[in-house]
Amino acid sequence: MTLELVTQNKVAGGWHKQYTHVAKTLGGCNMRFAIYLPPQASSSHPVPVVYWLSGLTCTDENFMQKAGALKTAAELGIAIVAPDTSPRGEGVPDDENGSYDFGLGAGFYLNATQAPWNQHYHMYDYIVDELPALIEATFPVSSQRAIAGHSMGGHGALTIAFKNAERYSSVSAFSPICNPMNCPWGQKAFSNYLGNDRKTWEAYDASLLLAKAESVVPVLVDQGEADQFLAEQLKPETLEAAAKRGGHTLTLNRHEGYDHSYYFISSFIDEHLRFHAQFFKGL
Amino acid sequence: MTLELVTQNKVAGGWHKQYTHVAKTLGGCNMRFAIYLPPQASSSHPVPVVYWLSGLTCTDENFMQKAGALKTAAELGIAIVAPDTSPRGEGVPDDENGSYDFGLGAGFYLNATQAPWNQHYHMYDYIVDELPALIEATFPVSSQRAIAGHSMGGHGALTIAFKNAERYSSVSAFSPICNPMNCPWGQKAFSNYLGNDRKTWEAYDASLLLAKAESVVPVLVDQGEADQFLAEQLKPETLEAAAKRGGHTLTLNRHEGYDHSYYFISSFIDEHLRFHAQFFKGL
Repeated sequence: MTLELVTQNKVAGGWHKQYTHVAKTLGGCNMRFAIYLPPQASSSHPVPVVYWLSGLTCTDENFMQKAGALKTAAELGIAIVAPDTSPRGEGVPDDENGSYDFGLGAGFYLNATQAPWNQHYHMYDYIVDELPALIEATFPVSSQRAIAGHSMGGHGALTIAFKNAERYSSVSAFSPICNPMNCPWGQKAFSNYLGNDRKTWEAYDASLLLAKAESVVPVLVDQGEADQFLAEQLKPETLEAAAKRGGHTLTLNRHEGYDHSYYFISSFIDEHLRFHAQFFKGL
Repeated sequence: MTLELVTQNKVAGGWHKQYTHVAKTLGGCNMRFAIYLPPQASSSHPVPVVYWLSGLTCTDENFMQKAGALKTAAELGIAIVAPDTSPRGEGVPDDENGSYDFGLGAGFYLNATQAPWNQHYHMYDYIVDELPALIEATFPVSSQRAIAGHSMGGHGALTIAFKNAERYSSVSAFSPICNPMNCPWGQKAFSNYLGNDRKTWEAYDASLLLAKAESVVPVLVDQGEADQFLAEQLKPETLEAAAKRGGHTLTLNRHEGYDHSYYFISSFIDEHLRFHAQFFKGL
């Protein structure tokens, strides 16, 4: 669990830092993540953490540089952790066609069962277990956690929260892939990482999980109506239907004119942080 | 003056748009710029404009994506225009060594007099005359202008405002190059663009211009004390001495721990926008 500091920048009175470490759950590859520590964070004042899961092609940098979230995180006294979106480095296989929606940068926050992916592509275990354990052992943060993400990372945040209600106090997503079993991105990733038995896919489909969940932490979803991926890939209506079927409350806001980009995220990220802050104790 | 729309994204209720156009002052090359129009902007409600000049290696995108400025611009009802940092495109010469601090991405907001630079590198005329004329003829903006920038763009903003007090209501800068005649970045650029007669350099040196200015619009400068370029390239102390010599008021804030990056800019950009808003009439 040795961490190497890569960069650090003072922001809004706190610190943005990038680290690398060897990730056991990911077959020993060297992973980079970023953490924002607000000015309030200290060993005598551990702060809660929002885990941010990014979308296809992203690294830890997209959110930290483009979301415009850090001033509000500083104001609220919340740390943010942004992991990478797949295992990386020597020996980690990539899609042989180099496509953007599968392989490197596209780990889909699941545990792959099919070769050659099953040696490294265990982003689910990394995000749920290894990374929080490392973060909580290293930084002045509490074990209060929320989880959020965008697009593929929205899928990751929702599925992880729905399966681990005891580990998170709330979940939020921008433009999530809501029903990956029934969209091209999800079908491509799941068939490669998990094989052709669609039964195994159900463990990673936010709509199926929500419909059958016994209890669900508070959920906030924002979706732009001018999002180019809305109808084919994202399908928020399936999440709404699943919430109804499962008897769960879902706040899903649709925004006229907004697209899939970080310009959309930056417009509403403050509201997401304030949403999560409500459910952290002692803030 | 034909504009071509390249991209548009809704942000904070307004619109970020990128356009290209043929810039006469830059020898007819095709230039891209970005504009943020806040939700208040309409033909019956023209809004004031802050011109943002970026630093070495940047394009119009760095500020729009990384500064986190657009929510506050929307709140205040201010448009922001971000031009590129040099002429670009076919036939525009670049430094033969491909260095980052001269040539493409490094126009230094001056009018070059030396071949081969003097055909295209007239960023001063572009920023002071051509671009505002185009913006004011095209978009629902008023002729109230402020100017701001970072590093090389801080140099640009200060020198342009000091020479054109009648055209801007205020000026601000993050980490500006304050005395380019006496730093490596400035000396390299000025000797190539303007030749070896140092007398001609004085027209583009913020400290010299401030010392001899008769009247100066309100000036705000922020500087990080952990900035890696502080001592060798930026030299804010020369600007402070010049203000004193000229009898002008200068607000220069030094911030412990902050570096040269957009993380610093994002921490204080709201204060810069509020500073400029004070001097716009009717906001």
